[in-house]
Amino acid sequence: MNKEFNLNDILAFEKRFRATFINSLGGFKSLALIGTRSREGNTNLAVFNSLFHIGANPPMFGFIVRPDSVDRHTLSNILETGEFTVNHVHEAFYKNAHQTSARYPKDISEFEETHLTEEYKAGCYAPFVKESKIQVVANFSQKIDIQENGTIIIIAKIKSVSIPEDCIQTDGFVDLEKAGTITVSGLDSYHRTEKIARLSYAKPFIKTSELNSL
Amino acid sequence: MNKEFNLNDILAFEKRFRATFINSLGGFKSLALIGTRSREGNTNLAVFNSLFHIGANPPMFGFIVRPDSVDRHTLSNILETGEFTVNHVHEAFYKNAHQTSARYPKDISEFEETHLTEEYKAGCYAPFVKESKIQVVANFSQKIDIQENGTIIIIAKIKSVSIPEDCIQTDGFVDLEKAGTITVSGLDSYHRTEKIARLSYAKPFIKTSELNSL
Repeated sequence: MNKEFNLNDILAFEKRFRATFINSLGGFKSLALIGTRSREGNTNLAVFNSLFHIGANPPMFGFIVRPDSVDRHTLSNILETGEFTVNHVHEAFYKNAHQTSARYPKDISEFEETHLTEEYKAGCYAPFVKESKIQVVANFSQKIDIQENGTIIIIAKIKSVSIPEDCIQTDGFVDLEKAGTITVSGLDSYHRTEKIARLSYAKPFIKTSELNSL
Repeated sequence: MNKEFNLNDILAFEKRFRATFINSLGGFKSLALIGTRSREGNTNLAVFNSLFHIGANPPMFGFIVRPDSVDRHTLSNILETGEFTVNHVHEAFYKNAHQTSARYPKDISEFEETHLTEEYKAGCYAPFVKESKIQVVANFSQKIDIQENGTIIIIAKIKSVSIPEDCIQTDGFVDLEKAGTITVSGLDSYHRTEKIARLSYAKPFIKTSELNSL
């Protein structure tokens, strides 16, 4: 039996109930740790669940920074240095990833507090998460302010990518499930995935079919 | 063994390979059908995988419209009427959902072509997908143009929500897995989920714990 809620019902919810409820409505979400380093050298690591694809040429994506969140250290480092890393989250360290959302003081590194390992590579000032199998380096491109509630959209360009070779299929598909990347719903519910199928490119009046492994 | 790709490698990929590859990098994605109806009365249904949470008060979210995509009928209807529905996708009809991405002419309804059922409710001009257990009505709020590649971000406000009563936990969490909502990776890979755990709100220097069912 479905229950209907109109806007007045939703606005009358207790604040945290409403946040939990509304955060679920968009469906399952991406889950990644964003690594940054201030000019002074302080490293920061924060979990994000709002990455969205923007385009492949040039390769671009976006994500959301909430006005009241700990993500602010991430944001200030990105604006300061123009660079950050995106690191997929796997089941072996999802609790560590979740713990990065605690409000640590700016001079404390979430890497240390959450027992995740900083990794550095040539040509990138920002730290990677060594435990992460899929790592992306990105450069800041654009900052968009949503006036309504103070939320910020960050648009970024991909600079480089590191992926297990055996997770890349012959048509370019990256098998996230094979890499062990997990997903999140609401604010705090973590899920592994189980593949149903890949489907062929949809064309009008032709029935789509399942793609075999490529 | 990880393989490293820099920007030049990525830009040298064959076009469709690159699109498939880059589309995977953000992790697992939301999956929803957006239902619209033009002023003339033509209905349109299109699958989207870029919904992202913006805020709970007022309840807002965003999604991406690609410049070269069939989503354009969705966009023109939204701009014309200011209203649309968001309908979660379940395993029973994910192939139908995928098929809505085919480039049908504007006067052909994807509902009819993909055998999904139009549903109408009082106070909403746009059609719902009857098969969907979680349905949201939203109003257009803002259109943001990404100059770089012609992509558009639509910001919307939630007007009402319909959810199975037994999928709402006492703290407001909506159990999408119980509702049977599925997720997508890349452009065409569909996955069901399996819950690992919900975790307690993270605080500095305190170990996070698993939440029991609420």
